[in-house]
Amino acid sequence: MHILAFTSVFKVSSLRPLPNSIVRNYSLSNKMTSKLPTNNPYFSLGGKDIWSLINETAAAKEAKSGEKVANLGQGFFSYSPPEFAIKAAKDAFDQPMDNQYAPPQGKPLLVNQLQKHYSKKLGYELSNNQILATTGANEGMFAVFFGFLSKGDEVIVFQPFFDQYIPNIEMTGAKVVFAKLHTPEGFESKNVDGSDYFIDWDEFEKLITPNTKMVVINTPHNPIGKIFSKEELNKLGELAVKHNFIILSDEVYENLYYDSEFPRIAASDNVEIKRRTLFVGSAGKTFAATGWRIGWVIGSEELIPYVKAAHTRICFSTPSATQVAVAKALEIADSNNYYENMRNQYKKKYEILQKVFEELDIPYTRADGGYFLLVNMKKVKLPELEWPELIANKPRDFKLAYWLIEEFGVVSIPPSEFYLPENAHLISDCLRFAVCKDDEVLIDAANRLKGLKKYL
Amino acid sequence: MHILAFTSVFKVSSLRPLPNSIVRNYSLSNKMTSKLPTNNPYFSLGGKDIWSLINETAAAKEAKSGEKVANLGQGFFSYSPPEFAIKAAKDAFDQPMDNQYAPPQGKPLLVNQLQKHYSKKLGYELSNNQILATTGANEGMFAVFFGFLSKGDEVIVFQPFFDQYIPNIEMTGAKVVFAKLHTPEGFESKNVDGSDYFIDWDEFEKLITPNTKMVVINTPHNPIGKIFSKEELNKLGELAVKHNFIILSDEVYENLYYDSEFPRIAASDNVEIKRRTLFVGSAGKTFAATGWRIGWVIGSEELIPYVKAAHTRICFSTPSATQVAVAKALEIADSNNYYENMRNQYKKKYEILQKVFEELDIPYTRADGGYFLLVNMKKVKLPELEWPELIANKPRDFKLAYWLIEEFGVVSIPPSEFYLPENAHLISDCLRFAVCKDDEVLIDAANRLKGLKKYL
Repeated sequence: MHILAFTSVFKVSSLRPLPNSIVRNYSLSNKMTSKLPTNNPYFSLGGKDIWSLINETAAAKEAKSGEKVANLGQGFFSYSPPEFAIKAAKDAFDQPMDNQYAPPQGKPLLVNQLQKHYSKKLGYELSNNQILATTGANEGMFAVFFGFLSKGDEVIVFQPFFDQYIPNIEMTGAKVVFAKLHTPEGFESKNVDGSDYFIDWDEFEKLITPNTKMVVINTPHNPIGKIFSKEELNKLGELAVKHNFIILSDEVYENLYYDSEFPRIAASDNVEIKRRTLFVGSAGKTFAATGWRIGWVIGSEELIPYVKAAHTRICFSTPSATQVAVAKALEIADSNNYYENMRNQYKKKYEILQKVFEELDIPYTRADGGYFLLVNMKKVKLPELEWPELIANKPRDFKLAYWLIEEFGVVSIPPSEFYLPENAHLISDCLRFAVCKDDEVLIDAANRLKGLKKYL
Repeated sequence: MHILAFTSVFKVSSLRPLPNSIVRNYSLSNKMTSKLPTNNPYFSLGGKDIWSLINETAAAKEAKSGEKVANLGQGFFSYSPPEFAIKAAKDAFDQPMDNQYAPPQGKPLLVNQLQKHYSKKLGYELSNNQILATTGANEGMFAVFFGFLSKGDEVIVFQPFFDQYIPNIEMTGAKVVFAKLHTPEGFESKNVDGSDYFIDWDEFEKLITPNTKMVVINTPHNPIGKIFSKEELNKLGELAVKHNFIILSDEVYENLYYDSEFPRIAASDNVEIKRRTLFVGSAGKTFAATGWRIGWVIGSEELIPYVKAAHTRICFSTPSATQVAVAKALEIADSNNYYENMRNQYKKKYEILQKVFEELDIPYTRADGGYFLLVNMKKVKLPELEWPELIANKPRDFKLAYWLIEEFGVVSIPPSEFYLPENAHLISDCLRFAVCKDDEVLIDAANRLKGLKKYL
């Protein structure tokens, strides 16, 4: 799901008269520019979202140069899901009932497989009532928000955040309260680790009010690559019990951890913490199948029914055939070293990109997990260009991203979109590179980035 | 999408202590029954939804009798999508990018095909900006509601309504105002036509207020089978212009009409009506693929951007491979008489069921379109049984449905769930039978229903 960064930059537009293309096909009327019913103010439009801007800049560069850019921007995969998953998907279409509605909770085959899979991972036996298949992790989180939140509730979200969280919370009527993952000292001049980013617990606890119903964490974290430590999870869990809030843990990158383990809040020994915990997983991230739209929400048996009730209203049910395929793929992957091989491949992918930044002495954050590399471009001397209108007033990372496409044909993401505007300066020297790409794409990008040398 | 009838019958429950199965796996704690954060009151639970009740009654009957029931309840298909659609789906999984995120508007192949398909159907050239692929028609309607509605807005919905409309509107903060499709006189003793159900326009216009932002219609209609006439659509369209509201037309059964044509509000000659029109279609209904979760919203170019903005937040994007498959299936179906053949098959399916009711002299509504048969069981002498607790206080149609399973092994749907409780009496002698089933299932049901004779 973590692809939507910065589609939220909408400006309010006035109502437009009908465009000519439409007028031509309508019979003429002198009332044609009468005012239409107004939209929900939350979805006002206008301007261009930055994602389109970056993509269109990349497309324009390709048209101008006649060659492909190295696209490390969006977090989709440049390659196919594993053959065993594709085969399982195709097979499912041969079963009549795998072409029809799944039960709202999910296809029993998938629910059972997730039960087995996570019982092993968490170290205790889950019940099937703790499991809900969702239409991607995105809809899963949306269903969690709608299941629990309404006007008057508050949800604490850490900056940097995945931008989709914010509207998904606000659409329920609840309010977002912003906490911070603090950047370690000295990142402008030296490499840091994902684990060096820290929570100031005093600062954090001050944000908790009687209206705090939920805290959202993302581990492994996009774009930092931080994995929350056991100590951090315990501390957060204790606060959840003390102040009675739910912890929603976005764990879509759960299989991509590069040290020995991935601590999970749902594996806590404290029953009161577990009762307040929900986590989200993604078949899209696990099997390089972001277009299948299969995710899940797992956790407290006392909380899941409300998530299911909301999910039933949002999407009714989740695609059937790919649920069956994911069930089979999970079973196969548990026995063929799929995850270990994937981690090893990703370590190599990171190395391809990290090597060039080391040669340039440009610092980056060593990711504990996930598939993003956060690079600090403070020492890059950005030339003064004629910036497109929509970039001219944006933080420096937008200009860096634009320039990297124009000058080197390398696409990245400006991560200040993961912060409130007033906090954009905290990350506006950085760029986020996605490494979930074929090695050739990464090698191409690394070679192009060597050109940064003359701008240091 | 029209399957969810009566999952809305939830009762508020108090917080339960943890079930034993969970306690076993948690370390013990004396705070284990501490209160958890409360749910969104909109999604309170408890009791058993009636859908589960009917399904479980059917399953229990099968277990008791050792033979399959004839299930004409849920509106899913008992057979597979056409071979050309399945092949297209399987082929898509071989393309790496058809396994990854689609653009939020939809795969270009599908958007282009829908543009062609509906330009022909509507008789004027649509632009691609009038088209949005959605994760089923359900999510399409939800996105329309969220794109336009917020607290203070009112939406007029006709009874009987598809139950999912109500929470989907209310989740935005808007209020539902209920209008009526009036039942023609004498239905308890004679067959009527779908087109005999009528709107009292004076009554209807009194429901319109300055806050009325949208009116929802469903044509062909579930469960009545009514197709709105050109005159009715024009009248509604004129009111939409006069009072400035949006018409959202749920047309998921658009290909199943049994007279010469299917009038569409989007084909109006009045540009001001078209500017206020959105309609919803469904690949699930069109290609017997309810589990693919592909639908679309089409209409005013001035309105679609707000639907797309909401859709992007709800689901981000729609499954990729089945979008490609639907694009190809639409192209093939336009040239191989698929729709005409389907209509002819459905006419025969209706005849199988209608014949038995004619023999019994039990009246039904001749459907103009769709795939439901509404039957009036007023003259059936329902025996006094020991009703299950959850049915005992329900309208007569729930008891009829329960008894039909128990006595004959035939599953139907009690349609009072499509009315407000205070209006349930308007339809509580009726049952809804879905005919989207293999002929053998319909023949089996018809033979079993002959046993009704001794209860007349």
